[in-house]
Amino acid sequence: MGSSTFGKVFTLTTFGESHGIALGGVIDGCPPNLKLDIQEIQNELDRRKPGQSKIVTQRKEADQVEILSGIFEGKTTGTPIGFVIRNNNQRSKDYNHIKDQYRPSHADYTYDQKYGHRDYRGGGRSSARETACRVVGGAIAKQLLAQFDMSIQAYVNQVGELKLNRTYSELDLSRIEDNIVRCPDEDMAKKMIEKIDSIRKQGNTIGGVITCVVKGTPAGLGEPVFDKLHAELGKAMLGINAVKGFEYGSGFEGAKMTGKDHNDLFAIDDNQVKTSTNYSGGIQGGISNGEDIYFNVAFKPVATIMRDQDSIDNSHSPVTVSGKGRHDPCVLPRAVPIVEAMTALTLADFLLRNRTYNILTDKQL
Amino acid sequence: MGSSTFGKVFTLTTFGESHGIALGGVIDGCPPNLKLDIQEIQNELDRRKPGQSKIVTQRKEADQVEILSGIFEGKTTGTPIGFVIRNNNQRSKDYNHIKDQYRPSHADYTYDQKYGHRDYRGGGRSSARETACRVVGGAIAKQLLAQFDMSIQAYVNQVGELKLNRTYSELDLSRIEDNIVRCPDEDMAKKMIEKIDSIRKQGNTIGGVITCVVKGTPAGLGEPVFDKLHAELGKAMLGINAVKGFEYGSGFEGAKMTGKDHNDLFAIDDNQVKTSTNYSGGIQGGISNGEDIYFNVAFKPVATIMRDQDSIDNSHSPVTVSGKGRHDPCVLPRAVPIVEAMTALTLADFLLRNRTYNILTDKQL
Amino acid sequence: MGSSTFGKVFTLTTFGESHGIALGGVIDGCPPNLKLDIQEIQNELDRRKPGQSKIVTQRKEADQVEILSGIFEGKTTGTPIGFVIRNNNQRSKDYNHIKDQYRPSHADYTYDQKYGHRDYRGGGRSSARETACRVVGGAIAKQLLAQFDMSIQAYVNQVGELKLNRTYSELDLSRIEDNIVRCPDEDMAKKMIEKIDSIRKQGNTIGGVITCVVKGTPAGLGEPVFDKLHAELGKAMLGINAVKGFEYGSGFEGAKMTGKDHNDLFAIDDNQVKTSTNYSGGIQGGISNGEDIYFNVAFKPVATIMRDQDSIDNSHSPVTVSGKGRHDPCVLPRAVPIVEAMTALTLADFLLRNRTYNILTDKQL
Amino acid sequence: MGSSTFGKVFTLTTFGESHGIALGGVIDGCPPNLKLDIQEIQNELDRRKPGQSKIVTQRKEADQVEILSGIFEGKTTGTPIGFVIRNNNQRSKDYNHIKDQYRPSHADYTYDQKYGHRDYRGGGRSSARETACRVVGGAIAKQLLAQFDMSIQAYVNQVGELKLNRTYSELDLSRIEDNIVRCPDEDMAKKMIEKIDSIRKQGNTIGGVITCVVKGTPAGLGEPVFDKLHAELGKAMLGINAVKGFEYGSGFEGAKMTGKDHNDLFAIDDNQVKTSTNYSGGIQGGISNGEDIYFNVAFKPVATIMRDQDSIDNSHSPVTVSGKGRHDPCVLPRAVPIVEAMTALTLADFLLRNRTYNILTDKQL
Repeated sequence: MGSSTFGKVFTLTTFGESHGIALGGVIDGCPPNLKLDIQEIQNELDRRKPGQSKIVTQRKEADQVEILSGIFEGKTTGTPIGFVIRNNNQRSKDYNHIKDQYRPSHADYTYDQKYGHRDYRGGGRSSARETACRVVGGAIAKQLLAQFDMSIQAYVNQVGELKLNRTYSELDLSRIEDNIVRCPDEDMAKKMIEKIDSIRKQGNTIGGVITCVVKGTPAGLGEPVFDKLHAELGKAMLGINAVKGFEYGSGFEGAKMTGKDHNDLFAIDDNQVKTSTNYSGGIQGGISNGEDIYFNVAFKPVATIMRDQDSIDNSHSPVTVSGKGRHDPCVLPRAVPIVEAMTALTLADFLLRNRTYNILTDKQL
Repeated sequence: MGSSTFGKVFTLTTFGESHGIALGGVIDGCPPNLKLDIQEIQNELDRRKPGQSKIVTQRKEADQVEILSGIFEGKTTGTPIGFVIRNNNQRSKDYNHIKDQYRPSHADYTYDQKYGHRDYRGGGRSSARETACRVVGGAIAKQLLAQFDMSIQAYVNQVGELKLNRTYSELDLSRIEDNIVRCPDEDMAKKMIEKIDSIRKQGNTIGGVITCVVKGTPAGLGEPVFDKLHAELGKAMLGINAVKGFEYGSGFEGAKMTGKDHNDLFAIDDNQVKTSTNYSGGIQGGISNGEDIYFNVAFKPVATIMRDQDSIDNSHSPVTVSGKGRHDPCVLPRAVPIVEAMTALTLADFLLRNRTYNILTDKQL
Repeated sequence: MGSSTFGKVFTLTTFGESHGIALGGVIDGCPPNLKLDIQEIQNELDRRKPGQSKIVTQRKEADQVEILSGIFEGKTTGTPIGFVIRNNNQRSKDYNHIKDQYRPSHADYTYDQKYGHRDYRGGGRSSARETACRVVGGAIAKQLLAQFDMSIQAYVNQVGELKLNRTYSELDLSRIEDNIVRCPDEDMAKKMIEKIDSIRKQGNTIGGVITCVVKGTPAGLGEPVFDKLHAELGKAMLGINAVKGFEYGSGFEGAKMTGKDHNDLFAIDDNQVKTSTNYSGGIQGGISNGEDIYFNVAFKPVATIMRDQDSIDNSHSPVTVSGKGRHDPCVLPRAVPIVEAMTALTLADFLLRNRTYNILTDKQL
Repeated sequence: MGSSTFGKVFTLTTFGESHGIALGGVIDGCPPNLKLDIQEIQNELDRRKPGQSKIVTQRKEADQVEILSGIFEGKTTGTPIGFVIRNNNQRSKDYNHIKDQYRPSHADYTYDQKYGHRDYRGGGRSSARETACRVVGGAIAKQLLAQFDMSIQAYVNQVGELKLNRTYSELDLSRIEDNIVRCPDEDMAKKMIEKIDSIRKQGNTIGGVITCVVKGTPAGLGEPVFDKLHAELGKAMLGINAVKGFEYGSGFEGAKMTGKDHNDLFAIDDNQVKTSTNYSGGIQGGISNGEDIYFNVAFKPVATIMRDQDSIDNSHSPVTVSGKGRHDPCVLPRAVPIVEAMTALTLADFLLRNRTYNILTDKQL
């Protein structure tokens, strides 16, 4: 069944393969009368695009988005926003050698098992190239959220064993874009860049962790049972290529704690309801409480390495898979805008879903 | 908008509050001609029910399920299966004292913010009592999966700092139900039970981690982009009360690794496609590859503690919240069947979703 | 796949068979803070229930609804409203003779083809008894709509060849409940009652048409493309047992007209936008324009007749199907509250869907 | 909320306005391994395109579809099929004069009420130009259905008062495309063409009825309660621009009949289950029974006429709306492929939905 749509009210549907004619998508359910800054959408795409620095893949793709509908006189009309991103730098022949091979820890084997037919060029639909469409959708969602003073910032918290030992509130998040690895701590950023560069020279790859922080979420977003705010955020993150884990608030560390230490006590601060600590990560009972929302997303090392690996082909014969082409030694720097985009899509959806509850009141959100 | 339904093809819709008349639900999309063992459904409920041991809440609820429809002559008919579980042991007056108070790290405040009205008795809809309905749905899903030789087993892997240092494949999973904490390592189980008992006596609570293992999943389940198998599993787990994190396969540890070490090499073993390692956790590109699926679920300590805590009430005045009533010092033992149930619901849904792809082939799954 | 849910935001999920233990359902997405009159829900059920007059089936069912959740202190909480209606008057043995037979124009054959297994007692899930659950859901939807001054009234416009020659605006709709056939024209009502009574004595059945009128719909409800307001109303009506056709506004007569005569001219009347005529039926481009919405629903004659009919059994041998049991000679009188209920569910859903569009404005609806 | 998607398993999402850059869409859930004939898709578009004969609008649009994804080596891959149709012949200035006016029986007023902002050029999203995307989706659905020997044929049955007095089974459906009005009776076709031509010269427009016939549907498609096969077909048809009514099988005439005459008796004919009559229209209890499915769709006259009409503008002042531009005097001939397309989309969706039921059997459909 169709499964290329994210969200229930503010929805993004994507299509396209790595080496097809174009990628694209449809954003549906975006409210009318939103002034859209198209350049800002392109800026977000540029944060994700290949070739932006020495520590990412050297493929060259313009990743130029063309908006086809849904905007009139600079504002959204409330009707679907269609868009395409043409593929220009397709070197499909780079993939002829793996046409019949199953690359280790790739989706080659599982696609063949599921569909009995696959577009092997660049991984086809399984390629992270698809996430460009999510960045477009997320950039529009961000502009909607900004109307309600919500903001989202993600950064690289860990590369391999290199891990920041400060929480987000101890960092200057305005510095994230100051370096090519997108880590707001300049010293750690340097170490991370060196690490990735060294790994790249070895023809190897490395994993890491991204932290994301949302500020300004009004209390009340999220649904109480299956569609908890953090459950949908978790699904959104786990749907990003290479993600292996998700934790919010106290996360896996919280599992070690006792209730006495973990409970966030309510207090009034400057006439506002606040909590003294925020192990809850801004979400209680699946619903935002107005505090900062924060979470960690673990990425595995990229599966494509520049080394020979043992594998099998689709007739189950042993083969040696050679690493070729232009690939990321570490996806984390380019994944930062993707994490932000999926977060924005999730929150925009919940923002609009929440509107269906307060029709009998005078609340706007 | 309605958000009490889980799944797209095999769906569970639940209703009911902790201290209302009854809980219940509807399982829809279950294929016809499945022989259902009703006693087995009740057995699963009994694994979750309160009062089953000294380390869980001492509330007494029969948690007797009554199936109202969808079964005829012992078999499913393909029409919706409605069921109810009556609430018998409601002591609503236990909650009068918190009627206007916001208990720390509970959903009291967020419900008030979202709905402007809440059933404060036992947490109302936010109570984990709702998960009884998931166990009913999961028990039916399990019986469907068993027809295709799929099995699901979860166990307590960690309580506070006490953590098993063996992986699931080094444990005897047939021993999980041998002790009241549901840890298959008898020595560790004893320590965990002592720990929980000690925490309970302090009027405190403690968190932990559950590991879940799925065996027998055919290759091909899961969707490639947003609805990846592990993304839906993650959402399913994060939708369980008190869950703070989810990781599958190598998880957060995988973030520290390099591609060379992390890649699972394909090989042929006894004419079957196998991988030499399984850091992928049985899922590649969001789709099952036939290997064991395994994942960890982190639970925070229960928010209700038997101690006084500072908080505020709904007029924003400071109050002291007193701990009263009968509560779990640690939810892990009772959460094991819930984790299994949500896993079963997720897999049953993907099993049926996958059928819509292979209509042009002769594959059954 | 699960298909027992109606609506996207305000949803109704139903379960239950004609001769099972109970029918029931879940209303999800109903906004909080709605004062619910439970007696009013029961009143609607009583309008649908069997045995209410001599021209309907003489089965006796109390059709007593029990609300199980979602209401606290007399108001909705915003969480799902579960309910059950117990079956009391089951005479399953009435159906033993048709256990293996395919009754003409019933769902026996198609259920066997679809499911390979069926509950033959009283038609099982295919029985119109399921519509009792829709009346419960519709009664709650009506109470929500009433908060916004929307009202729904349906009446019997035609029985067999007997047809009112006046439009709804020429009738006194306050008289609908004055007679047992639910036709607001007393003379025609008498003729219809005589007709049905005569048909009943012949062991035969007869079809007819119900007209439904909605007053007070704000402009703006409905979606422009697939989910047009009249498209969802059409689906809602065609989903009622025995319905064969749906037309709104000018309907099939409009197909004979020219644009010059059919166009509804806009004008200002008492500072309100009005149309001089209303061939549009209150809906333009799939969206309500504030005028009265009206439509016709055609019902076929009930398939169960008190006569012998030639048919086949499930081994494809010829059989004679005998008419037995207690059945409606004409479903129209009891279908009036069902038409109203499905209309109310559709409009409540669109009312809430529309809220997701106007977040950037100060509109309530 | 997003409402531009049709279907649940085989889905079509569309975007685009009449005078925007492009229209387009995404077909998701199409099974892999379907050989697609792209020319056949274009052929269907050509049946719908403007300028094809003297009795339709004389606008010139190439309506050339470009498929962007989801097909590899001539076959579907099971991943989403994205496509665009560029708008070439935009004369937006034709619409400047109605920028602030509400054209009678158009969607101008309701769009303004719903969205507070609208693309007035050619009706924007409300234009029937959007249906080109449905024809693309339907053409792919048709190719899927053809694999299972299902075929769909629609024809013009009525124009104004001119109505065929023969049923579909008395007509030679291979003659539908022999004339420009798409009526298989040559004599009636001539009269219809003359009528439309005469209406066109008067600057007026006229309505009519299309009949659609589906042959080869296997028994078992459709869902028993809300999502009856005919309910979804009805929604599909009522979602087409200008449609006012839908009836299947005996339809509104069936409302006049008695059960004795209306019941379709089962019999065995050549070892096949058949019914002696087919008032059921191939659907019983909402599920296909293997007989031909047939239904009628009523279209109102086009709202744009070449005459002056009284109306108001968006400041509620009286205005005279002038008819300008290139419009259809009768939409019926061009609506035939649209009716077929929506029918194909509906049936493809049910075909795949049905697969989720028979997993415990050896049935393919």
